[in-house]
Amino acid sequence: MADIAKAAVIGGGVIGAGWIARFIENGIDVGVYDPAPDARQKIDAVLQNADYAFAKLTMAPRPPRGAVVFNESIGGAVDGAALIVESVPEDLQIKHSVYASIEESASSDAMITSSTSGILPSELQRDMAHPERLLVAHPFNPVYLLPLVELIGGTRTDGAVIDQAAAFYADLGMRPLRIRKEIEAFVADRLLEATWRESLWLIKDGIVTTEELDDAIRFGFGLRWAQMGIFETYRLAGGEAGMQHFLSQFGPCLQWPWTKLTDVPELDDELIELISSQSDAQSGQYSIRELERIRDDNLIAILQALRANDWGAGRTLAAYEKKCFDRGAIQRDDIDIAAPIRTLERTVPTDWTDYNNHMNESRYLQCFADASDGLLRMLGVDADYVANSGSYFTVETHIRHLDEVAALQPVHVTTQVLYAQGKKLHLFHRLYHGDGRLLATGEHMLIHVSLETRKASEPAEHLCRRAEEIAAAHAKLDLPEGAGRAVGRK
Amino acid sequence: MADIAKAAVIGGGVIGAGWIARFIENGIDVGVYDPAPDARQKIDAVLQNADYAFAKLTMAPRPPRGAVVFNESIGGAVDGAALIVESVPEDLQIKHSVYASIEESASSDAMITSSTSGILPSELQRDMAHPERLLVAHPFNPVYLLPLVELIGGTRTDGAVIDQAAAFYADLGMRPLRIRKEIEAFVADRLLEATWRESLWLIKDGIVTTEELDDAIRFGFGLRWAQMGIFETYRLAGGEAGMQHFLSQFGPCLQWPWTKLTDVPELDDELIELISSQSDAQSGQYSIRELERIRDDNLIAILQALRANDWGAGRTLAAYEKKCFDRGAIQRDDIDIAAPIRTLERTVPTDWTDYNNHMNESRYLQCFADASDGLLRMLGVDADYVANSGSYFTVETHIRHLDEVAALQPVHVTTQVLYAQGKKLHLFHRLYHGDGRLLATGEHMLIHVSLETRKASEPAEHLCRRAEEIAAAHAKLDLPEGAGRAVGRK
Repeated sequence: MADIAKAAVIGGGVIGAGWIARFIENGIDVGVYDPAPDARQKIDAVLQNADYAFAKLTMAPRPPRGAVVFNESIGGAVDGAALIVESVPEDLQIKHSVYASIEESASSDAMITSSTSGILPSELQRDMAHPERLLVAHPFNPVYLLPLVELIGGTRTDGAVIDQAAAFYADLGMRPLRIRKEIEAFVADRLLEATWRESLWLIKDGIVTTEELDDAIRFGFGLRWAQMGIFETYRLAGGEAGMQHFLSQFGPCLQWPWTKLTDVPELDDELIELISSQSDAQSGQYSIRELERIRDDNLIAILQALRANDWGAGRTLAAYEKKCFDRGAIQRDDIDIAAPIRTLERTVPTDWTDYNNHMNESRYLQCFADASDGLLRMLGVDADYVANSGSYFTVETHIRHLDEVAALQPVHVTTQVLYAQGKKLHLFHRLYHGDGRLLATGEHMLIHVSLETRKASEPAEHLCRRAEEIAAAHAKLDLPEGAGRAVGRK
Repeated sequence: MADIAKAAVIGGGVIGAGWIARFIENGIDVGVYDPAPDARQKIDAVLQNADYAFAKLTMAPRPPRGAVVFNESIGGAVDGAALIVESVPEDLQIKHSVYASIEESASSDAMITSSTSGILPSELQRDMAHPERLLVAHPFNPVYLLPLVELIGGTRTDGAVIDQAAAFYADLGMRPLRIRKEIEAFVADRLLEATWRESLWLIKDGIVTTEELDDAIRFGFGLRWAQMGIFETYRLAGGEAGMQHFLSQFGPCLQWPWTKLTDVPELDDELIELISSQSDAQSGQYSIRELERIRDDNLIAILQALRANDWGAGRTLAAYEKKCFDRGAIQRDDIDIAAPIRTLERTVPTDWTDYNNHMNESRYLQCFADASDGLLRMLGVDADYVANSGSYFTVETHIRHLDEVAALQPVHVTTQVLYAQGKKLHLFHRLYHGDGRLLATGEHMLIHVSLETRKASEPAEHLCRRAEEIAAAHAKLDLPEGAGRAVGRK
């Protein structure tokens, strides 16, 4: 299932559009059906957000973006699709009629998933000709960034189909969570619903405003929950005495009057007006577009922070990137060594710019350092080699900053090996804009070191041979302009 | 109130110890009373965690750590304290007796706060001689990292005391949240309690395990809630149609069977055993100490990520650091220009290291770029100047990487001006470890540019004069070793 070439998305609201984005960013073509007149425009807005977000989120190589084709009918959209996503309104009748149309045109073994937030899959598949391939795959907004997708099968769903779905979503960088029993609203939304109901009471009773309630979340337990859930957090609260101790302490509170648990608030006009006006006061200074970008920037920063700590959603991101790198690893033997080698390709992230409104000078060196890593990987310096044999340290660097580059622009680096013998590796990088402008050159001396002694050491022979082979080929090229230069001297 | 020299903490559990940590890291001395035989040991463990966390969290200058004095009596602990924190068990009788002891010895205008998670302040202050100075200040674990503190006054609390408390906590880098009306469990814990109850049902009914439920949080809405609360998030879900539209869509769900709202689960032995064993399977591979460090590292990384985006809890951290820097600011006219100028001081962040387990080469250039900015600020290139007159761009760089440096090590940069005339500024930076080792040198040519034409331009005269004055003074110093070097040549 990981090799789905085409998916179909029926219904292009915020969730459907999020699925489209997640798919095309991973190279999957998508056929779309949504009868709303403004569907295309709304979907395009989400796709733009996703494109911006993915460029910042990861520099891992991904396949070329999939194509989005808008169709006039469900039949056209599902034609040739191995996966069909239903993201239409939460109305059982509408969903049943959509499934009927899908089954008319789709291949009988195409997987069908519903994005429903709460309807039981057994009810969804009731009238299907091939119910065994339907499951709920419930994602969270923004679908292109949040990893969680809840998977729930109905009584007639084939377990093997859920297995395939889980592998597919993991491949897209998501965290598929298989729910063990079918219940309404599944898991995350039950927790959200409980919080939401209590929140409505707190606003209605004038205890806090919407902004204050949001702050009670994001300055406190929200920070905890981005990395550990409720049980792991409470395990910590129990300390060395453990979970058992914590539970027996906490138990009695459940009976205290600490929530409005037995009441459902009436969401009448008055309460709606109260919340809307407070929400305007809280967030009205931003357009929805701006808020989406702020949210996405924050999510990206949090995901990257957790990736650096190898934890939770950051670990999922790292696993996704590893897969991308493995797939995109340029075959070593395929490289044309008669010319400078393309060792890096990326889009400039928005947070790489500085107060002068262009890429910060230190990010030029980051591009060159990453390009050196790219070349070293081609030579055979991989995780195994670093763990067992050694690595290269840069001992000297010369950069000419020739031109500016703004955020979100495409850049790439080519690398010419000036000299390679024994421990020494002398590289010359050129950083280009996608339009061909030369942005900077970087000249670098690298020394092979033992990571035990942290001193210079001989590299493995196959590395040496490969490096020398490339250096010999590159010796036929002209010496690059700027090589051998010192600061301020021609 | 911001200038509290001594506080007292009565009860040194995980919350009391967290308060002690927050206070001493901000230079406040603390008198402690806790009759438990192992209190001191448990408190020390928390203080160690906090010390480690603060060192990673911020490089802002803070006052010398406050002293912790363990006392044999409440009277000893509160003596001379302007703030007294009660963090004893949630038992009204115990709390009343503690307040009686406090009032016997404390100054009658000392502020008294309770850390209770849910008891009404009006009940707490019932028998006090000076009830006007009591309020609830409810923090969240870990108290030394999470910014939220809920402030709730009772019917007899003086509003001015709550104002003072709010200013004091903001000064400690916290986000004081004044709750508008007194209710049991206040705000955040009501939301937590609602989630907790629903969670117990989901475990009891076998829908998910504790680990799966935690993943449903931390791979989904937990990531959202670290930066935007429930209302701002749902505002986004409503899209351009707005909150009103979202609410009227969402309203009906409240009546659907999507939570167990009317039931309270029985936390019997069987359920306790189920949760404990699942929690062991989930987190048992880590000791509590290890989990605390993981949690703290993640919280720090998230706070720093949000600080980079100037949002939420990150903005609070930035404001705290600004205050610390303002207090510790170096006066411009005090700079000794007869020697290289100290232009940067910082601790190496944990995410600046790479697979070779030392500071990544590009971060060397970041240190030098930041040091250049430090020098430029001293010359008078501030936000106003950049907005109206121009800026400096680096056009050429030469770095010698001489030694390695690991995460969390202190480093600083000194800057020698080799040449300054008109548009040109030629700098030589030296990066040192705190122990005096020279880690790297950086030689840089900077050109003054107009930010309108993006071309070279003359700097303002006062800038020129100051730069030339420093260059003239530095001309008397030796030419640094390594200046004028090209890669690979001596």
